[in-house]
This record gives sequence, structure tokens and C-alpha cells, in this order.
Amino acid sequence: MTTPELEELARRVRAASRVVARASGPVRDDALRMAADLLEEEWSALVDVNRGDLARAESAGMAASAQDRLRLTEARVRAMAAGLRGVARLADPVGEVLDGWVRPNGLRVSRVRVPLGVVGVIYENRPNVTSDAAGLCLKAGNAAFLRGSASALDSNRAIVALLRRAASKAGLPEDAVALVEDTSHETAVAFMRLRGLVDCLIPRGGPSLIASLLEHATVPYVLDGDGNCHVYVDATADLSMALDIVVNAKTHRFGVCNAAETILVHAAVAEAFLPTMASALTGAGVELRGDERVRAILPGTAVAEETDFATEFLAPIVAVGVVDDLDGAIEHITRYSSGHSEAIVTTEVRAADRFVAEVDAAAVLVNASTRFIDGEELGLGAEVGISTQKLHARGPMGVRELTSVKWVVRGDGQVRE
Amino acid sequence: MTTPELEELARRVRAASRVVARASGPVRDDALRMAADLLEEEWSALVDVNRGDLARAESAGMAASAQDRLRLTEARVRAMAAGLRGVARLADPVGEVLDGWVRPNGLRVSRVRVPLGVVGVIYENRPNVTSDAAGLCLKAGNAAFLRGSASALDSNRAIVALLRRAASKAGLPEDAVALVEDTSHETAVAFMRLRGLVDCLIPRGGPSLIASLLEHATVPYVLDGDGNCHVYVDATADLSMALDIVVNAKTHRFGVCNAAETILVHAAVAEAFLPTMASALTGAGVELRGDERVRAILPGTAVAEETDFATEFLAPIVAVGVVDDLDGAIEHITRYSSGHSEAIVTTEVRAADRFVAEVDAAAVLVNASTRFIDGEELGLGAEVGISTQKLHARGPMGVRELTSVKWVVRGDGQVRE
Repeated sequence: MTTPELEELARRVRAASRVVARASGPVRDDALRMAADLLEEEWSALVDVNRGDLARAESAGMAASAQDRLRLTEARVRAMAAGLRGVARLADPVGEVLDGWVRPNGLRVSRVRVPLGVVGVIYENRPNVTSDAAGLCLKAGNAAFLRGSASALDSNRAIVALLRRAASKAGLPEDAVALVEDTSHETAVAFMRLRGLVDCLIPRGGPSLIASLLEHATVPYVLDGDGNCHVYVDATADLSMALDIVVNAKTHRFGVCNAAETILVHAAVAEAFLPTMASALTGAGVELRGDERVRAILPGTAVAEETDFATEFLAPIVAVGVVDDLDGAIEHITRYSSGHSEAIVTTEVRAADRFVAEVDAAAVLVNASTRFIDGEELGLGAEVGISTQKLHARGPMGVRELTSVKWVVRGDGQVRE
Repeated sequence: MTTPELEELARRVRAASRVVARASGPVRDDALRMAADLLEEEWSALVDVNRGDLARAESAGMAASAQDRLRLTEARVRAMAAGLRGVARLADPVGEVLDGWVRPNGLRVSRVRVPLGVVGVIYENRPNVTSDAAGLCLKAGNAAFLRGSASALDSNRAIVALLRRAASKAGLPEDAVALVEDTSHETAVAFMRLRGLVDCLIPRGGPSLIASLLEHATVPYVLDGDGNCHVYVDATADLSMALDIVVNAKTHRFGVCNAAETILVHAAVAEAFLPTMASALTGAGVELRGDERVRAILPGTAVAEETDFATEFLAPIVAVGVVDDLDGAIEHITRYSSGHSEAIVTTEVRAADRFVAEVDAAAVLVNASTRFIDGEELGLGAEVGISTQKLHARGPMGVRELTSVKWVVRGDGQVRE
């Protein structure tokens, strides 16, 4: 696909986005429900197409875990349909009046939530992202411009075809959902440079995608960031609560961005807490890596190097450190945190308040597991990612984060003096 | 200045930003008021220093209009001080609770407004921006990392020295305000790449700065965009109101982004309106460039080429077109608008509502001059720029747009099932 061809497609998506932006909420919701119906009707055909992608992936030597992400099953297709129906049930973000006031000269000012326009999504090989992302985009009044991975191309094509049929049945243009079928690196770079045609780009992928984006993108983007998350067990923590939270944050799922990667323990409770914690984590198959003070209490624990504290393991490994006090914990977190989700376990109000105020992260938690930092768990209904940047969206991004704002000013002939 | 030296300075600013973020509102306001006092005490010394910058600018052949932007006078320094006092009086945006709710499992969720951290500002040669931008940054709990133009270097140095003294007197670190004194292009590019050290970059400058930013920046930025603004005079407009609005939007100030650059007139009122409008604008020294239908009514008017409709003149020139109807006006605006501020003059509710809904711009106005799209005029107190992008901030950016959000989740031991 040449860049002019990509731009021509982008112009069609952009034209479609204007129609979607003006469509009523019920029409956009209809498109989502019709897409859900089609997914359920066609699940078996989708699984067949996906089998082809899987066979190619296998013969290309794709890792088993990646093959699993690529796989569609009846249950997974039905979950995609249920996801779309759930998004359709959310309140319509478009048209929400954020605030408004009257100026002394009588001008009535309001700020109204509006769609972004064209939202581009570059994503990994999970085909369910195709319908999840498109559903959230349409719900927020946007066109979805999708670029999935080469390995899932046939699956994505088939899903996008259904989504386009559903859009059309609901009275929206087919180009409200479009797939870039050329999965070359050159086209990905050209995609990142569609300034003026794509209003917002959401990359979901690893460090090489992010690096490429930082280097090449001219369209605005929101980064879905890494989570090097900490749980800090304070001197006054209820140690039984702390154990539950640490075990849940670390072991509930290993490969997720809101899993804990480092546990920090106040020196005053280190001897009481660390042995219990170690046996619980070890029992769950987790390897501990400790600093010197941890190893003095838990001899035989592997050494935590500086790099361990800086690593998002996404694996059954945890770094553990002992700190002198709350200041030590905050300093450690300030140094190593990726700014995702940080938790304190404490019974002391002042420690909780200082942790909340001084730790700089998308989310801070008091006496709760980091695993709750997730759009669904926090009540957003669905999420398109979790932002660790500070502009536009920070933390879980739901449909609201796929919108912009418009100033509306109404007068009766006012001119500026 | 080498890149490591710039990074070392950025690290100091970043450390300072943490202190500013935790400082109370009254302490930050004190810093602004003390800076205002110092500016007023030292106005004469500042004007002296500025004279040196001006002399160099003149011998380098700087245009008179640019020299005027560079010039400090007693009145301008006092206006800078008054600006800081005005910002100090604004409500503190830091700590505002945006919303919050309780989850079924008892988790209490809230979203709280927090500072961005380090805000970088790259700006043109107006030295007042140094105190204006620093004031807004401090008000929002951020450190201000400034990079002005070479021609204003001595003036900026002197102003920043005062701002740093004021910060220090108020109990904040001096590095809460810092100036990059190396004004080379290389250092500007290095500045745009301080990812992890600068949280947000606000470029204020021309097309070459924006192009450089799109190519090189790795830090998130908010663009202060061009304004190719339109006034559309509908068939049902009160023509006397329309004349006032058109004249105000075009002639109140020529060199500003919210000035009108194209006037569109409904065919039904073109004959009644265009002659009066033309004589009023011509009388104000404005050159009209019209399309064919305009020239049929106003023979002798210069031809408006396609490029004229696409141009932000920032000058006493205006493009004029006749359209068949509201759809024609919306189509024209969709094609040529830079997404800044767009106005309709009409008495018909339906036309007003459609214009508001269908025109995609940061601001839409009904029966009011585009000149009102400005932070001060809309009641924000002060502005750091006007964004024409859709992410993070759109339209006038005040202190609120210099903040981010933090999710605060409080529980009593909740873990994820």
C-alpha cells in the first residue's frame, strides 16, 4: 500500500467520522448491538478463518503464549459480542455539558463533550481488540481506523467486515470502521504521520512500537504505558491485610500492567512480615529477589540488583526491599515507578494522606490491591488502555477519554470593545 | 550547552517541581505576588537591560513589529506584574476533586486534579511571556522550564532572576523557574527530547517551530494553533448585528489568531449585505478579495483565489464568499477551517443549532464576534495559549489545562477476586 493509497483510505474514514459524530446515541448503540448479533451468528466462520492465521503462525514458529492471544474460540467470540453490548449500554458521552457560565457582557459560555473524529489504533495480535476498540470508538462518536498485526490479518479482516456490515445496517457509513490491511513497518510509520486525517492514535504494543512512535509520529497519541507497580507495607499496617493485598497484587495475574513488581516493607515490621510473605509468595510459585536487609531476614533469597527494582517482570518474580520509613518508600517509588499504580497498606491517616499526595502516579491506592486499576474494575465499563502519561488521559481510559471538548458561545450581537 | 548539561538542568527543575507540587496554594500565590512586587521595584533596571537587547536587534536589522514585541516599557512591566497578581487571585486548581464514586466492593474512587510537573515553554521574543507563562505554571503547581528567543536573552535572564528570587522568598526552590540560556537550534531540539524530565511542552511560535516539534519532539506537547476563522452571515441574520460582528471580528486587531479571515454570506442576503459590509471594511483599511458571486455584486473587488480562503492573513485583508445555504457554509468551513473559532450570525434556532453541532472547531459562536475566544474574555483569568488540537486541551488554555489528574482509590483491604 502506497502512502497516497493510505491517505485516500484515511480521507474516506475521515468523511465517515463526520457522519458518525452527528449520529444519535441510539444509532451508534444499534451499530454495536448489530455487530454483537453478527459476531454471534458468524462465530463459527470466524473461528475457521482464525484457524488459518493460527496455522501460519504455528509454522512460522510463533511462541505458544502468542498463539494463545491470537486464538479465537466460540467463547471468545461470544465475549467480544458481550463486550459490545456492554459498551452499548454505557451512557452516551457525546453532548455532555461539562460546565458553563455567563459572562458579564451576557455571553453564554459552555463546554460540550464532542467526538475526537478519527481514532487510530495500532495493536498486537489479539483479534478481540478489533471489536473492543472499534466498539469504544463508535460509542464515543468516532470512526475507528485500525491497524492490527500481520499474524491476525485474516481474522481482523473478517471481524472488520462484520463491523462494517453492522454499521451500514444501523445507518452509518461502512468506513466508520476501517482496517489497514498492509501490515508493513513502512505503512505503520506512514499511519503515524497522517496528521490532519487522524485525530488521535492509541498504540497498544511493546517498546519497539513506542520507540517508533516517539521517533516518527506527527499525529497526537496517548500511550498505554508499562506498570512497574509497588506495594508499600507501612509500620502500622494490618499485616494480615497486607499479606492479602501483596499476594493478590503479585499473583492474581502475572502478565498484566497493574500487577505488583516490587514490595517495600517498613523496617519496623520487616521481621514480622517478610517470612510470612515469603512463604505465601513462594507457595504461589513466585521467585523473590531481595535487597541486603531482606536477605538478612530471609537468608537464601536471591539478590535484587538495581535493575530488578527497575523491571516490570510480568512474570512470577518479585523484587523486595526494606525501607526505613515512609520517606524511604516514597523516594524508592519516585525513583523506580513507571507512574502506573502504587499502593500503601497502613492504618495511619497521616501516612495514607502523604502517600496519596506525594507519590506521582496515574493511580494511588490505600489498603487495596493494585489489580483494581482497570477500567472495568473502577466502573468505567470498558477500557481502551491505561495511560501513564499526564496529558489528555491518565489512568484507565474509557469512552470519555475518546472524546474532546468544544466551546460553545452564544450571544445576541456582542462585539469586543 | 551540551545535552548532558541541559539534562542536568532539567533534573534540577524536576526536583524543584516536586516541591512546588506539594506547596500549598497560598505559598504559590505568595511567590507570584512577590514576583509582581519585584517587577514593579525593578522596572527601570529591566527596561535598561531590555534596551541592550533592542539595540542588538536593531543593528541586526530586526523588523519594527518584532522590535515592538521585544520592547519593555514601564507600562509593560507593570502589566506583567498586574498579570501575576491576577493569576494569584484565581482559584487554586490543585486538589480539585473532579468526580468520585463508590464501587460495589466498597472501594472509594476519586479523581483529583494534580500538577503536570515540569512544563516546558518555547516562545518567541516577547519578554512578558517569561513572567506570564511562569506565573501560570506556578499557579498550577508546576515548575516552569523556559526557552525564549535569542534576541530577548538578556531581558529574559533578568526577569527569570527576579522570578527565582520571588520563588525563594516564598519558600519555593529557585529552580521552580529556570531559563535555558542556550538559544541554539540544537538545544531547542534537545529540549524537545527531554522525555521523562519534561511532562508537557507548550510551543509558542511560528510554522518552523511547529514543524521542528512534529519531527523531533518525544515529550508530550500542546499546540497553540493558527486561526483561519470564519464569520457566516445566514439568510435570517439581523444584518445590522452581522455588520457589527463582521467589522469587529475582522478589524478589532489584525494580527491575532481569533480575527476573522473569511466572511461567508448567504446568497439570499448577499445583495443587501455585501455593499454595506464592503464599505465598512474598506473604510477600516481592509482589502476585500471575493469569489465570483461576490464580484458580481461588488465589481472591482480583487479575486479571492483558493489560497486566499486557506490563508490566515493576520493582516487587513479578508476573503469573502457567497454560499447557497447553511450546508454550503458548513462545507466551506469544514474544508478551510483551522479548527479555531467559527461564528454564525442568524436569527433561526435550527441554523444556529446545526452550525454549533456540525462545525468542527475548538470554539463555535452564535451571534458574537470571534474575538471573544480568548482566555481572559471567556473568564479563565489568563491563558497560556489557544489549542487547536483535540487532545488534552482545546480552545483557550488556562491554569486548569496545566494540570493532570490522579486516581485515588481507598479501601479497607479489598483484593481482586
